[in-house]
Amino acid sequence: MTGSPKKTLLRVLAGETLKTPPVWMMRQAGRYLPEYRELRATAGGFLDLCYNPDFATEVTMQPIRRYGFDAAILFADILLLPQALGMDLWFVEGEGPRLNPVTCAADLTKLKGKDDIHDVLGPVYETVKRLSGELPKETTLIGFAGAPWTVATYMVAGRGTPDQAPAREWMYRDPIGFGQLIDLITESTIEYLAKQVEAGAEVIKLFDSWSGALGGSCFEEYALKPAVRIATELKARFPGLPVIGFPRGASGGYIKFADAGVFDGLAIDTSVPADWARDVLQSKVAVQGNLDPMLLITGGESLERETNRLLEILGQGPYIFNLGHGITPQGDPANVEKMLRVIRG
Amino acid sequence: MTGSPKKTLLRVLAGETLKTPPVWMMRQAGRYLPEYRELRATAGGFLDLCYNPDFATEVTMQPIRRYGFDAAILFADILLLPQALGMDLWFVEGEGPRLNPVTCAADLTKLKGKDDIHDVLGPVYETVKRLSGELPKETTLIGFAGAPWTVATYMVAGRGTPDQAPAREWMYRDPIGFGQLIDLITESTIEYLAKQVEAGAEVIKLFDSWSGALGGSCFEEYALKPAVRIATELKARFPGLPVIGFPRGASGGYIKFADAGVFDGLAIDTSVPADWARDVLQSKVAVQGNLDPMLLITGGESLERETNRLLEILGQGPYIFNLGHGITPQGDPANVEKMLRVIRG
Repeated sequence: MTGSPKKTLLRVLAGETLKTPPVWMMRQAGRYLPEYRELRATAGGFLDLCYNPDFATEVTMQPIRRYGFDAAILFADILLLPQALGMDLWFVEGEGPRLNPVTCAADLTKLKGKDDIHDVLGPVYETVKRLSGELPKETTLIGFAGAPWTVATYMVAGRGTPDQAPAREWMYRDPIGFGQLIDLITESTIEYLAKQVEAGAEVIKLFDSWSGALGGSCFEEYALKPAVRIATELKARFPGLPVIGFPRGASGGYIKFADAGVFDGLAIDTSVPADWARDVLQSKVAVQGNLDPMLLITGGESLERETNRLLEILGQGPYIFNLGHGITPQGDPANVEKMLRVIRG
Repeated sequence: MTGSPKKTLLRVLAGETLKTPPVWMMRQAGRYLPEYRELRATAGGFLDLCYNPDFATEVTMQPIRRYGFDAAILFADILLLPQALGMDLWFVEGEGPRLNPVTCAADLTKLKGKDDIHDVLGPVYETVKRLSGELPKETTLIGFAGAPWTVATYMVAGRGTPDQAPAREWMYRDPIGFGQLIDLITESTIEYLAKQVEAGAEVIKLFDSWSGALGGSCFEEYALKPAVRIATELKARFPGLPVIGFPRGASGGYIKFADAGVFDGLAIDTSVPADWARDVLQSKVAVQGNLDPMLLITGGESLERETNRLLEILGQGPYIFNLGHGITPQGDPANVEKMLRVIRG
């Protein structure tokens, strides 16, 4: 620690309540920004951007320069890890990611081990290192990974699916084989995130975008348990490292995450009532969220009303302003400014 | 009341805990049943089935005959109401429903009023009446409608959408116009359901399949408020009528439904942890749910394990066994039997 005041995001994750909450946005480096679209036009595909530290650093910096967000999140994708494990990965324009799926325990033998991922992921660590040097001193650098269940849903289906049916089917039919897949992703994710922290990431966020698809005992087994294991191991290696969980769509399962005692913050999705999050989560963890990104398309009085509502309900405790889901390409940069004016006064 | 014991579903909705919980399944009349597929092959399209009391009665009876479920739910679709309000409705095979959308307040003037829906919906009431006569004396007849928000999402988009964006956009841009649409659906739904009760429906279930898309104050405004208004008005007209709410994906919002004091039961979606539902809902309402329908495809030990888990966690209070979502066409009728053996011993 230097004599300078600790960064706002870190203060909130340590349990402080700030008069003006820190703010950042999921997908803040993205297609809603003209400067991002301009760079994308010259840089090639999405994966080229992720693996090129020049480009990845630049797009991560763009929203920081424009808006002065309190945090920057590494520009990368949750599917870089499966690629580093040896899977083919490509993006179909306008549709999304594709992988050659793993569909049974025997397929797992084709994948690499947890310690063999760093050659592929080296450029990502380089991006983190550069960002660590370039970001303004008040800006917190967040590293991230997909949570094992969510990463598994793509590895098993070979693509995004509306209901994660292929992974759910495997998980019920062959709990032992599926558990091996989850373990491999969990252990690789720990190594992946450890390297991000070594390169300069100050906070880790774990995205479980599809945890809402897990019913019954499977939520504990495939969402909660791996997330707790990752956070626990990272904190053992890097004492004091703050970890934000994001079990999207977890319903009452958010409480299990808060009670686990290893998450410093929880990101709440759009469906989580702010007053409920205040009542049952905020005494245990910092809460981050959850403005509907649609409001950055529509703007207007609704944007002002819902922004103020969040500040009123969650602002009396440790709170990080964010969206409930990533900002969409149709988001209007002027509405982001408007939102920031409401937050920062 | 006659001297015969009250039906199990009604007893649970009145707050009783039964040793063997009553059980039925969402979409229990459906394509997983060979006898349903056979009838569909001769009956024409899905809408032909809904509007033909012979066919609709027969398919509603099929799962009762085969499995002896404790409840039958009227065979119909939540989009019959918009059709009765004057919208064109058709189904694209393999894709889903289509309507000529209403996209602004001016479009609402093209729709009919709440009292002009009964000509179109007459065959539905006739189906309820016939079912009321044909069902075994121990089987409860459930009438239903879509909740206003969910119905609105289809009316505004003209189809199903992954994120209900068109309705969310209108709701933020023009709260007054959108509120008029919600009011029209709310008031029509009350009349629609009142006729179902007059025809013999003993319980009403309100399906808000997309309430999880409502963030911030909009959940209260467009999911909770209309549902409470419908339940309150129906109970005023039919004292003692039990109403089941289903705010799917509502996260902590389930508690607001339980606290509203007008729902006798709440159906929980697959993402709701059973122990949380027991702890925060079951002292206020009967809980219905929430087995993952994927388990009726996979069967095996997972089906047995998760069925037993639900019975153990929720069986100590007023509980109706059901799925967290409708059974899919790939569901195996033999797995339904297996599930019932576990429940009924």
